[in-house]
Amino acid sequence: MRGLMMNRPLLISSLLEHGARVYADGEIVSRTVEGPIHRYTYADAHRRSKQLANALVALGVEEGDRIGTIAWNGYRHFEIYYAVSGLGAICHTMNPRLHPSQLAYIINHAKDKYLFVDLTFVPLIEAIADKLKSVEGIVIMTDREHMPSSVRDGVQCYEDVVHAHSDDFSWPEFSEQTASSLCYTSGTTGNPKGVLYSHRSTVLHSFAIALPGVLHLDESQSVLPVVPMFHANAWGIPYATPMTGAKLVFPGPALDGPSLTELLRDEEVTLTAGVPTVWVGLLSHWRESGSGVPSLQRVVVGGSAPPRAMIDAFEREFGVAVIHGWGMTEMSPVGSVNVLSFKERALPVDARLDLQCKQGRPPFGVEMKVVDEQGKPLPRDGKSFGELKVRGPWVCNGYYRLRRSTMHDEDGWLATGDYATIDERGFMQITDRKKDLVKSGGEWISSIELEDVATSHPDVAQAAVIGIPDEKWTERPLLVIVAKKNRSPTKEDILGFFKGKVADWWIPDDVVFETELPLGGTGKVQKTLLRERFAQHLAER
Amino acid sequence: MRGLMMNRPLLISSLLEHGARVYADGEIVSRTVEGPIHRYTYADAHRRSKQLANALVALGVEEGDRIGTIAWNGYRHFEIYYAVSGLGAICHTMNPRLHPSQLAYIINHAKDKYLFVDLTFVPLIEAIADKLKSVEGIVIMTDREHMPSSVRDGVQCYEDVVHAHSDDFSWPEFSEQTASSLCYTSGTTGNPKGVLYSHRSTVLHSFAIALPGVLHLDESQSVLPVVPMFHANAWGIPYATPMTGAKLVFPGPALDGPSLTELLRDEEVTLTAGVPTVWVGLLSHWRESGSGVPSLQRVVVGGSAPPRAMIDAFEREFGVAVIHGWGMTEMSPVGSVNVLSFKERALPVDARLDLQCKQGRPPFGVEMKVVDEQGKPLPRDGKSFGELKVRGPWVCNGYYRLRRSTMHDEDGWLATGDYATIDERGFMQITDRKKDLVKSGGEWISSIELEDVATSHPDVAQAAVIGIPDEKWTERPLLVIVAKKNRSPTKEDILGFFKGKVADWWIPDDVVFETELPLGGTGKVQKTLLRERFAQHLAER
Repeated sequence: MRGLMMNRPLLISSLLEHGARVYADGEIVSRTVEGPIHRYTYADAHRRSKQLANALVALGVEEGDRIGTIAWNGYRHFEIYYAVSGLGAICHTMNPRLHPSQLAYIINHAKDKYLFVDLTFVPLIEAIADKLKSVEGIVIMTDREHMPSSVRDGVQCYEDVVHAHSDDFSWPEFSEQTASSLCYTSGTTGNPKGVLYSHRSTVLHSFAIALPGVLHLDESQSVLPVVPMFHANAWGIPYATPMTGAKLVFPGPALDGPSLTELLRDEEVTLTAGVPTVWVGLLSHWRESGSGVPSLQRVVVGGSAPPRAMIDAFEREFGVAVIHGWGMTEMSPVGSVNVLSFKERALPVDARLDLQCKQGRPPFGVEMKVVDEQGKPLPRDGKSFGELKVRGPWVCNGYYRLRRSTMHDEDGWLATGDYATIDERGFMQITDRKKDLVKSGGEWISSIELEDVATSHPDVAQAAVIGIPDEKWTERPLLVIVAKKNRSPTKEDILGFFKGKVADWWIPDDVVFETELPLGGTGKVQKTLLRERFAQHLAER
Repeated sequence: MRGLMMNRPLLISSLLEHGARVYADGEIVSRTVEGPIHRYTYADAHRRSKQLANALVALGVEEGDRIGTIAWNGYRHFEIYYAVSGLGAICHTMNPRLHPSQLAYIINHAKDKYLFVDLTFVPLIEAIADKLKSVEGIVIMTDREHMPSSVRDGVQCYEDVVHAHSDDFSWPEFSEQTASSLCYTSGTTGNPKGVLYSHRSTVLHSFAIALPGVLHLDESQSVLPVVPMFHANAWGIPYATPMTGAKLVFPGPALDGPSLTELLRDEEVTLTAGVPTVWVGLLSHWRESGSGVPSLQRVVVGGSAPPRAMIDAFEREFGVAVIHGWGMTEMSPVGSVNVLSFKERALPVDARLDLQCKQGRPPFGVEMKVVDEQGKPLPRDGKSFGELKVRGPWVCNGYYRLRRSTMHDEDGWLATGDYATIDERGFMQITDRKKDLVKSGGEWISSIELEDVATSHPDVAQAAVIGIPDEKWTERPLLVIVAKKNRSPTKEDILGFFKGKVADWWIPDDVVFETELPLGGTGKVQKTLLRERFAQHLAER
């Protein structure tokens, strides 16, 4: 028997509509690419999103079309999020740090119809424009005054596009299962894979992260997502803020310590969120300048595990509570957060830090289990570790235009590739890394791709890339090679060979020459041994 | 295009499963009908709910079957909530304050298969047992020691039923649209109508009320719902607590000031919720005893509008923040809450109280509008008033086994029958009452039913029942009658005539004799005029 309740779909447009109605004077503050601080309200953002929606319809955008963005965190990007998804098209955010050839691959794979690009990235998009097969037009996210002097045909100015249309627009209703946004993630093997979110998954994820035990979002909060809007939708913050009336502060391109500190102070930010790499710069600036940010209560650290010393520094040096989070692009992305209870806050420092180094507990909606090699669930005792599997309404069940996912099991769970324990109280801790990936500054580097390049060098016989600890970037890639017989390549030879083949920041920090690589039983390189051997390599260099 | 996200249904069983896994040691404390305080954990409650689910299956309960409860707020009632809905059957909660004949009507209309009844209500159910057509068995919610000495055939003891089964049970998966629970509401006309909630509506409602800007539920909270579990699911609190890990405290049958105060103190309750009538008793006890409850931070007042003096007393005399809420059984029930921002908290007392007398703002998920007589939306200016209409995924779209709802408009909105304003910031205020209902102690009394009884008296020509202000019950019914020619019934005649025809507490507090009733243009009694004329009647008497 079915319940007799209204069949109202969960739609992204409703989030901004709610914000504009109920928190009409709630603020959105942006540091712009052009320089000045821009501020307006949820009601303003809603009006402009409706103007943009009319503009998109006039450009011929239809339900299901993919619209790409290459942009920083800012109010125009926010408007694109809502206008594109609101009319039933798909907002495809892209990481500008990818190698241009990979960007071109992704745009072509997604078949993006239009691209919205920040001024910063105009040269980037110009460089790949000839390779793009589906793009019908490019909109530069600025006003007429700041438009580049010469642009190609089909390139338009964002403010001209928006101003040409009225804000008289009714958001269409459609199934909540409709695709809303798309984000590619680099996996262990092969090309980036697209995670295709739905309106339903986005709204449910917003409810979950807004809860008091997760990010605690309400009108009392001023939230600055340092985590980029191209990185798993800035962890969902741009959706959950109009739902709850929290003030939203966008940092634009200025992510250095002094710029962030200025914005955090001026906008009385209470909660910020980002990867450990960003916080290294911020903490260093705070130490040099001798002060933190008085309004700041909480900092979410995710993307990579924060070093214990970073948690301690935030908490004891600067009085900011750390929320250690874990997630995946495949999970919208929040999988767990480590929010301590009063009792746990009162633990002795070491015991508290031990606990805070765990990845935390899932919010309602995420189910987790760790399983042995036969897929059998292991005890939740904080000791037994196995592969971490997850499921829930904001976890993907496949990838865009990919027939088969190797991440998804027959039982309907996503195999994360991470190894973890879960304790009696539901706290999950990652004990081992996804085997082959290096995580630098919160972004994945595929060791396999780097090994492919290295072994394509005429003097290289075998290559292994491992991530080794780095204070600033969390991890950096180290390349270990075995030269071909009678060949003696230099370090400069090898590293120079990467230039232009991968993004500059992917290029390994150093090369080590060995006579052989340690192999395991099945003939695979035992990277665990290499990691142990070279753990101190960069530090000692 | 559909998103590629897991199609996981939103199910009530997941709420308790989550609580038991992630907040395993979260407490549920109950004052029992038998007397002692009972305490256990979410993990315990989950185990016993699975035992009960096995028991229900053994009793032949199938998906879609209605299982009635007549019970106080307590842990066994909580287990029934989860076991019944969890296996796909429908938990039908009933108000024991209804007249026995109305209870029998509801049980027969719902076709309840089993009834679960607290010890208190055994005489009530015995009295109507012969009228019940669908009931196959009755379970008394106690242990063997406290079972009545003689019971009919088919009457069982709850603890015996539970203990006979193992806790090895896997909650089935089914569509989230499946009906989960049923609650009858008294309307303006005719028989009570059943609101049939779904798993989806219940889980979404739980997310919404748990938000920081609504009830703010997390592990730091200890929550005591005074509002009964038979009254729109205790405003959803039993569902949102295991979702968030809040401690749950059930008061059982002891709702008087001293008993509540004791439990609030002993269990360090931070949040409580109930109708104004209950708070009259509590505040009076606090004043007499000279102290409130130090741990108590917030009190939710709903069901009827709290008097301004009550808000002021909680806030300034006892330091408890008042959350004025509004809702309907048809809305699961939360429609709006008045949670003030820091800025609003700092207003001068009178301005703050003015604001707090409003019914507040809807959480995300509830849409509201006020419309004129042509159904056209009125400005959101805090002045224009019209009928309040609502919609959203936890608003009902009809009533159980009722072909046509007069409350539902063709445009898909629920017409609340309340008249209201909405201001620029989304604050809604009810300006006029549902015309014909009297709300006494948070429960509806149908004036039309009382008028039907009155006019069935041989000496009565016309009758009108109006609600007039009452300090303790918020409102009490006053009967205004015009006697038939040459008849002079006494007050005692008339009031005695109601005995046994309606519940005792429905019987009007007084009778006024008039020579005629004021009639409006369409020949309807103008109750507004009567209310004005008799506003001071009970107070002066």
